[in-house]
Amino acid sequence: MAEVISTVEAMDIRFPTSRELDGSDAMNPEPDYSAAYVVIRTSGGGEGYGLAFTVGRGNEVQVAAVRALAPLVVGLPLEDVLADLGGFSRRLTGDSQLRWLGPHKGAIHMAAAAIVNAVWDLYARREGKPVWRLLAEMSPEQLVDLVDFRYLQDALTREEALEILRRAEPGRAQRQRQLLERGFPAYTTTPGWLGYTDEKLTRLSKQAVADGFNLIKLKVGADREADVRRLRLARDAVGPEIRIAVDANQAWGVDQAISWLEQLAPYDPYWIEEPTSPDDVLGHAAIRRAVAPIKVATGEHCQNQVMFKQLLQAGAIDILQMDASRVAGVTENVAILLLAAKFGVPVCPHAGGVGLCEMVQHLAMFDYVAVSGSIDGRVIEYVDHLHQHFVDPVVIRGGYYVAPTRPGLGARMHARSIAAYRYPDGPQWTSAI
Amino acid sequence: MAEVISTVEAMDIRFPTSRELDGSDAMNPEPDYSAAYVVIRTSGGGEGYGLAFTVGRGNEVQVAAVRALAPLVVGLPLEDVLADLGGFSRRLTGDSQLRWLGPHKGAIHMAAAAIVNAVWDLYARREGKPVWRLLAEMSPEQLVDLVDFRYLQDALTREEALEILRRAEPGRAQRQRQLLERGFPAYTTTPGWLGYTDEKLTRLSKQAVADGFNLIKLKVGADREADVRRLRLARDAVGPEIRIAVDANQAWGVDQAISWLEQLAPYDPYWIEEPTSPDDVLGHAAIRRAVAPIKVATGEHCQNQVMFKQLLQAGAIDILQMDASRVAGVTENVAILLLAAKFGVPVCPHAGGVGLCEMVQHLAMFDYVAVSGSIDGRVIEYVDHLHQHFVDPVVIRGGYYVAPTRPGLGARMHARSIAAYRYPDGPQWTSAI
Repeated sequence: MAEVISTVEAMDIRFPTSRELDGSDAMNPEPDYSAAYVVIRTSGGGEGYGLAFTVGRGNEVQVAAVRALAPLVVGLPLEDVLADLGGFSRRLTGDSQLRWLGPHKGAIHMAAAAIVNAVWDLYARREGKPVWRLLAEMSPEQLVDLVDFRYLQDALTREEALEILRRAEPGRAQRQRQLLERGFPAYTTTPGWLGYTDEKLTRLSKQAVADGFNLIKLKVGADREADVRRLRLARDAVGPEIRIAVDANQAWGVDQAISWLEQLAPYDPYWIEEPTSPDDVLGHAAIRRAVAPIKVATGEHCQNQVMFKQLLQAGAIDILQMDASRVAGVTENVAILLLAAKFGVPVCPHAGGVGLCEMVQHLAMFDYVAVSGSIDGRVIEYVDHLHQHFVDPVVIRGGYYVAPTRPGLGARMHARSIAAYRYPDGPQWTSAI
Repeated sequence: MAEVISTVEAMDIRFPTSRELDGSDAMNPEPDYSAAYVVIRTSGGGEGYGLAFTVGRGNEVQVAAVRALAPLVVGLPLEDVLADLGGFSRRLTGDSQLRWLGPHKGAIHMAAAAIVNAVWDLYARREGKPVWRLLAEMSPEQLVDLVDFRYLQDALTREEALEILRRAEPGRAQRQRQLLERGFPAYTTTPGWLGYTDEKLTRLSKQAVADGFNLIKLKVGADREADVRRLRLARDAVGPEIRIAVDANQAWGVDQAISWLEQLAPYDPYWIEEPTSPDDVLGHAAIRRAVAPIKVATGEHCQNQVMFKQLLQAGAIDILQMDASRVAGVTENVAILLLAAKFGVPVCPHAGGVGLCEMVQHLAMFDYVAVSGSIDGRVIEYVDHLHQHFVDPVVIRGGYYVAPTRPGLGARMHARSIAAYRYPDGPQWTSAI
């Protein structure tokens, strides 16, 4: 009998990060980093792990959204799914009734991400490869088959995508070796959370440089004078050679972003991240025109490939910050990498959260080996918390992500972590309440 | 003791419309029109009714999203809520954890719509007015206080919004009288569902004209030849003077939309609705440039005011199709009406579904009386099903919506309908399964 997907399990896992003010920013003062954690099992004993990241309340809605998609998946023959992962993704994101909740955005789309990522994880485990290598060893035709071009063709055709991938093909083997030797550059947001004292900011900034990072990031946007002070302190701490990015987490309107950044400009911020609403393509374009040479970056809240397409078409961003579980997982992110390559915009993924570093490194590494073919100006965000809950946690060495070699996408959590942090009945929550 | 909001109840109500193929279109072949139905009660005996519309599966996710927002509402003093409805809306859409599921989009934003609308209903019942009149009798300052200008100011300032409202103030009384006498023009989608036979299309098109409608709408986008045939049949049935709008429900890419419309052009379609992804501002702008004089219309899936702002800034639409429960309810729709007035684009609301006609008529009527001040080129969609489930159903006379005079927003359902169609335990579902 053919192997089928037999179960799709969704669990509500929450970490009480708000107790420490890790992760605090202008829009997220007290996040509890959480996951709608998904385990897919097959009749043949296969397993895949994925998750949708949230910041606490509402994670139960995310879990409900995964459960709403599950009946579309259970019972499918695994070979059919793996032979047409593009079609599988469209099945999840195109259901004629469920798409009303999006379409292609919000909780229902992140639910698709969790499931799609779990299937990629399962696929990679079967093949005995990390997902970055699984992708980087697929043919250009196989990769292009993953992409839903319906709404992209005015910016990227199938033929153009094939051309991009074929151009990168001859260098794949060499770049794969380089990646395994050197890793992929990381940057750190650890020093810059809004909840930290000036002393902690200064100390952690210096520590980041000592640890080998060439780029650190500070949260801004809540208090103009404090931002100027904090950026000055960080600049004094790291010196002129280290890049400092700033991240407003959507705090500003368009004109406000421009005037605020004028005051930060003397301290040479490298990029401004999420200066305004993530939906405001034209607003980002206006900000970018006004604040150059400060670069404009966004993406962690960018809902889908149609929005990324427009950010690129409008010349609204210098840096595309892909997220592993905001859009519909690995499959849609392949399309987004191709769009970025077409427009020559570097992808510097969003990470942090819980499990995001583990997953998104695969996409950046695939991009380097087989899509953009470049590491120039590329960095992956790194935040050093919650990795202990993962079976295959990221490894950072000298400011670089070490390329993972174990099979899968990296989202699998330890059973003890799941048991401890399950909401609301895990002991980490019952004992706190 | 001060009156407080004591309960927020959310119910899963589904109507098995797919059994009849009412409501079938290119992206929604078999919708079961549904509602996450919300009842808000106060300690003083006040009641308010609202809903978020969905098309079947996933309505339980929508209900879960309402329940996630409920704790932000229960216990609030009613006077505080009604004195600052702008702040109340921001409380729901800006929660630092729940906003991750959007922000300002998808299931969590529609949940805010259902609650915000229920509170407006409650408010209007207390004042003994229909919502359109409640709004139309508020001062320009009160109305502008409803608006969250953070992400709008580059297109519409508070001062400009005040100016728009003040300009319309002198004519309010006269237009209110005219509205009560004549009603508001409607158009009908009843003839044009994809699931209907040619004979039914022709018969219902003629019937629509006989009923007084000057605009009918046909669904298109699934089959090019069939669309040409159906549009020709409808044109033959209604003659050259009646406007025929066509609605692709997002079926096309940008270039495909343009070429498809070339073939429909000989039959003089009045507007093309949702030609492509609702997220594609730049795509709509490109289509509009190519297909003029066919007008471009969208909005029923437009997620929030930031997207409407851009559609207007980019010159992407001729007609703005506001929806009552996609954006965050009456409050955000006031902002959208002001944006439309600023850019001189007529608002022709999306309706149909279940309860949408009942609610959205209030916004169009308020717009006429107190914002745009014009009825020129304005029509409200009308579909003649499911109205029997509402305590105050819309009344259509000679192709016009009769202005409602009973207090509230119109979303209150009959208790017998709720009992019968509750999912999955109502008898309409248990007996069908």
